[in-house]
Amino acid sequence: MSGGSLVQEKLDQAAGILREHDVDLWLTLVRETMLTSDPCLDLLGGMYCAWTSAFLVSATGERIAIVGRFDTSGVERLDAYDEVIGYDESIRPALRNAIDRLDPASIALNYSESDSAADGLTHGLWLVLRDALAGTPYAERLSSSEQVVNALRGRKSAEEIARVRAAAVETEAIFGVVTSALRPGMAEIEIAALVHEEIAHRGLGYAWDRSHCPAVNAGPEKEVGHSAPGALRTRRGELLHVDLGVRKDDYCSDLQRVWYFLDEGESEAPEDVVRAWTALWASVDAGAAALEPGAAGWEVDAAARETLVAAGYPEPMYSLGHQLGRSTHDGGTTLGPRWDRYGNSPYGVVEEGNVFTLEYGAPVPGRGYVGLEEDVLVTADGVEWLSTPQRELWLV
Amino acid sequence: MSGGSLVQEKLDQAAGILREHDVDLWLTLVRETMLTSDPCLDLLGGMYCAWTSAFLVSATGERIAIVGRFDTSGVERLDAYDEVIGYDESIRPALRNAIDRLDPASIALNYSESDSAADGLTHGLWLVLRDALAGTPYAERLSSSEQVVNALRGRKSAEEIARVRAAAVETEAIFGVVTSALRPGMAEIEIAALVHEEIAHRGLGYAWDRSHCPAVNAGPEKEVGHSAPGALRTRRGELLHVDLGVRKDDYCSDLQRVWYFLDEGESEAPEDVVRAWTALWASVDAGAAALEPGAAGWEVDAAARETLVAAGYPEPMYSLGHQLGRSTHDGGTTLGPRWDRYGNSPYGVVEEGNVFTLEYGAPVPGRGYVGLEEDVLVTADGVEWLSTPQRELWLV
Repeated sequence: MSGGSLVQEKLDQAAGILREHDVDLWLTLVRETMLTSDPCLDLLGGMYCAWTSAFLVSATGERIAIVGRFDTSGVERLDAYDEVIGYDESIRPALRNAIDRLDPASIALNYSESDSAADGLTHGLWLVLRDALAGTPYAERLSSSEQVVNALRGRKSAEEIARVRAAAVETEAIFGVVTSALRPGMAEIEIAALVHEEIAHRGLGYAWDRSHCPAVNAGPEKEVGHSAPGALRTRRGELLHVDLGVRKDDYCSDLQRVWYFLDEGESEAPEDVVRAWTALWASVDAGAAALEPGAAGWEVDAAARETLVAAGYPEPMYSLGHQLGRSTHDGGTTLGPRWDRYGNSPYGVVEEGNVFTLEYGAPVPGRGYVGLEEDVLVTADGVEWLSTPQRELWLV
Repeated sequence: MSGGSLVQEKLDQAAGILREHDVDLWLTLVRETMLTSDPCLDLLGGMYCAWTSAFLVSATGERIAIVGRFDTSGVERLDAYDEVIGYDESIRPALRNAIDRLDPASIALNYSESDSAADGLTHGLWLVLRDALAGTPYAERLSSSEQVVNALRGRKSAEEIARVRAAAVETEAIFGVVTSALRPGMAEIEIAALVHEEIAHRGLGYAWDRSHCPAVNAGPEKEVGHSAPGALRTRRGELLHVDLGVRKDDYCSDLQRVWYFLDEGESEAPEDVVRAWTALWASVDAGAAALEPGAAGWEVDAAARETLVAAGYPEPMYSLGHQLGRSTHDGGTTLGPRWDRYGNSPYGVVEEGNVFTLEYGAPVPGRGYVGLEEDVLVTADGVEWLSTPQRELWLV
């Protein structure tokens, strides 16, 4: 399926979601998208827009793009808009006309206090829009598109699910290459370089910034977080933890894997490592069991969180999972605790067709970090694993 | 100079610009910067921020970063902030504390109706901030950082100028490779592929989206704009126009070059092509002559625009030039007409140390498009060319 057809598929889906949420018009405004893009632009075609551009999707299924004269041909080629209007001096007349004609009772804009995937409207463009609508009834009909965007991103089509799965398959193959190459004494940066080579060789992209994709954490001295791979080296009797996501056909994977480097005389992992591994899996499985349509995000997280803490491990200072797809945050429901940091995203309700990560970790003193992460699909009956779960610790 | 030192250099410069504009505090708020980044983040260190993060730069020279716990190490490594505060559950207490302590009479935020390079604050984060400051006097002290960011981006340091020049040198070398390879009958996409190869081979990045970087326009049938290179082929008696910008050490070039394919029996370009070329250069030179500290952007554009129209060519539906540096829009003053589309950017005043493009073009019926673009530095005495101007049409 080409990029254009997937855009049409998602925009067809959008009209239904708008009706469901009683929104007449979904309006996306962007400008100079090399500098400040809206994450929703990918759903709308992903084209570059130099001048202020408006994408209107109505609940009746009508789609209008208003873009600078020079950008019209790129939008027309998508064949996803009923009307592509090019302008020269000002977007205001065409935008006012289009809104007048559609006469929406409610207009959803991409701003959100909680969900950055639905928060692409800049404050400056919000001021421009408010000014353009001044004196019309539409100025009072603006609201957040948060729920619309959350549903649209969150409910994955069969094609989208297939793409996430394909990205996971590539990632697992890369983990296989890493496993073959691992020796005690390898530096984190050497392991990252090997992964970068494989990514280039396979023609893949990165699910997040290349500087810490993969994140590589060797042994107990590494502070696990978003820091880059460094000079620390794998050692016998210690753990190696890698967090990797690739992008294939615009869709992402996000997986964590763990290796244990057997010490002299060991033929299996020591008790402290096995205990952490078992506790983590029990915790992730508890989360997976709670992950079903209708559950609130925080409830799923709580199931996993309580299990891990009850096993005597420190409470993770992050969420159990996030939605995955076009980016590693593709949908606004977080499987996370009700902390201010997460806004209202943990209150979101899990839906059939959502794709989530399930990820938790724990330090093993003197050994390193055990961190699991799998990618799963929510079905009517429960969870379907899109990745092949790492049920066994990998021994080197 | 390392990335970190350049960040320090720009942040040192920022304190002086804040005092000049009577702003006590410049506050940048970002979140999940893989999805919605603020173009100003590059000036502040360019680090990835997962959770809501605040960067405070005061007119007294104090710099504070408040970021999620996992992101602290990346910021500390820059050595550009006096204080790096990590948080777990909510940014609000640390942010409120820091602002209370600095007690600013004025706080500049990155929003702008005209300049996307100063419009990185999302509307959702603006709501979050307004809420966090509710009940404090600071809620009433917010304004746009437009002028501060414009000056900070616009006044290039010696290091920044050297980097733009180096990017231009690479670009010219790539044009040289193209010239050697050109033959009648080559498709636009073949020429683009050759440029992509050279960019990869030289370890460069793209100044704008790879799909239309370079833009390649062969002959009169191509609609010149932001459309991608296609199947059109170079032909004898026609023009080839290429618009290319590369990124080297985080800084960009942006240049246009033109080739004429001699027809059977021709030893020089025909009269219609030469006339357009001469008129364009006269127009660009008129703009260059007007480009001096103190001029308004629109005045510089008008000098060029009037010259071209007086020579009988169609009025360009775009501006003569934009500021160049970390991106192809690095600074908010546009050398452009006072059209609504450009907001107040043409009213900006040219300053010493600004780097601008100078670009104009004209169609030659039946032949194709002649488009010039050079990169120049504004000095106290006038313009210094950072690229080697294409004073002669290139003949194939």
